[in-house]
Amino acid sequence: MLVAKIFTFPKAGVLDPQGSAIKPVISNLGFTNVKDIQTGKYFEVKIDACDVAEARKTVQELCSKVLVNPVVEDYEFEILEA
Amino acid sequence: MLVAKIFTFPKAGVLDPQGSAIKPVISNLGFTNVKDIQTGKYFEVKIDACDVAEARKTVQELCSKVLVNPVVEDYEFEILEA
Repeated sequence: MLVAKIFTFPKAGVLDPQGSAIKPVISNLGFTNVKDIQTGKYFEVKIDACDVAEARKTVQELCSKVLVNPVVEDYEFEILEA
Repeated sequence: MLVAKIFTFPKAGVLDPQGSAIKPVISNLGFTNVKDIQTGKYFEVKIDACDVAEARKTVQELCSKVLVNPVVEDYEFEILEA
């Protein structure tokens, strides 16, 4: 069993309202060394695959069909042994 | 400048309604090798810190004060060079 950790985040130039809402809170709490924050979604998917290549293909299909809106979102993922 | 990638997810035993909503969709689309999916939030934070230890401390404080609800959520993070 393999585990895919998938992160999605707004494409460059796309508004990130949640991130914009958190920024002033962080600043008001005195986190002066936090320069920027961007939010996104996280998915942890268990995949029954023989090898990483097969799992990678499944994740790419899953992202393009279900998890990611390709108009406004980018994604990254990594695949680990469960 | 360091970048922290933070993932939050529901604690074991806490309901994950978004994950539960996605599961039947994945199944109906024929992804038979996808055995489970769990959803969470993803934050990418830019931190102006001298070293990883300092950035790690900032992230832990940020998570406990702003980003994570410790009652129902766990979190993990990794720190990378920007």
